[in-house]
Amino acid sequence: MDLMVLLFNEFETLDVFGPVEILGKLEDISKIIFVSVAGGLSVSTQQVPVLTDDLCSLPVPSEYILLIPGGIGTRKEMNNDNLLDLIRRLAAKAKFILTVCTGSLLLAKTGLLDHQKATTNKRVYDWVTLQAPEVKWVKQARWVKSGNIYTSSGVSAGMDMALGFIADSYGMAKAEEIAKGIEYLWNRNSGEDVFSELYEPE
Amino acid sequence: MDLMVLLFNEFETLDVFGPVEILGKLEDISKIIFVSVAGGLSVSTQQVPVLTDDLCSLPVPSEYILLIPGGIGTRKEMNNDNLLDLIRRLAAKAKFILTVCTGSLLLAKTGLLDHQKATTNKRVYDWVTLQAPEVKWVKQARWVKSGNIYTSSGVSAGMDMALGFIADSYGMAKAEEIAKGIEYLWNRNSGEDVFSELYEPE
Repeated sequence: MDLMVLLFNEFETLDVFGPVEILGKLEDISKIIFVSVAGGLSVSTQQVPVLTDDLCSLPVPSEYILLIPGGIGTRKEMNNDNLLDLIRRLAAKAKFILTVCTGSLLLAKTGLLDHQKATTNKRVYDWVTLQAPEVKWVKQARWVKSGNIYTSSGVSAGMDMALGFIADSYGMAKAEEIAKGIEYLWNRNSGEDVFSELYEPE
Repeated sequence: MDLMVLLFNEFETLDVFGPVEILGKLEDISKIIFVSVAGGLSVSTQQVPVLTDDLCSLPVPSEYILLIPGGIGTRKEMNNDNLLDLIRRLAAKAKFILTVCTGSLLLAKTGLLDHQKATTNKRVYDWVTLQAPEVKWVKQARWVKSGNIYTSSGVSAGMDMALGFIADSYGMAKAEEIAKGIEYLWNRNSGEDVFSELYEPE
């Protein structure tokens, strides 16, 4: 299995590298591929310059997991037809699709989340859900599984979701082994989400 | 203030990008600079290709925090005089030095941790501490502050340390605001470390 990571400028750093750290520990993952619309450098909001391939320079993947991060860049990219087209192409052949934070909004904009349960960042929850009313948004969730699609709440929730995905697909013992290996205190209950309440208007 | 991140091949992904995510939220941080001995791409163990500067191509930093990650690459780099020399040069002018996981071993090899309290990864604790007996290693710690040097336990502990550093330097409210913003459940007690016991021989 490969891991295909979609990047764009102003992605949120930890949305990508939390799950990459965790999924990268799976013996089952061989190549980790970073892909963007134009290739070259994609730079995160926290100024991390990552070298990416475009679709033409991409190594031919075997089966793969598609990871879609969020970040401030999604506000622009949600209206970028080239990016949405890239997501559709990659999603069509993905075995699993994992989104973090407002990455679920990008996926929603392709129509692939229509009538599916999903979650997203809680700080901008009202805005996101307004942009994609066809999705069955779940507010009180650290992450949501809907078929082969996993969507997570904001930023660091992506790590908990990645471990939840591993528990589902590779067994709980593997998820616990990886969490221990990176000395991470896993929030393992997908339905427990203190942040959905922290951001409620007072 | 700038953030100067030392990279080398086979650094551990989250050692770098957990703290970069968190420190990058400080309004006080302007440039985030990735530096390596030779410049060009540094590739993490999880295959993340990050573009770096060498010392000659480096933008002139203002005051900076130096971040040193760990990872399997430290086993080679701890004997690389060019890397240790680069650390000495960068450390000499750093306002603060933060290390994650076996990054403390790299710093220890420069002599800068001699007779200082520090911590490191718990899975390889016995091996690390054997390599650097002049350091006052603290086993039961999520992170340790010693003057302007912060050292953390394994991988994800770097995020807790980064928030602890922010609490010390910018106030608890700022640390809590950043943790909430990235929906992170901060383990805020530097002395609480379940992993030091999890890795005890049975």
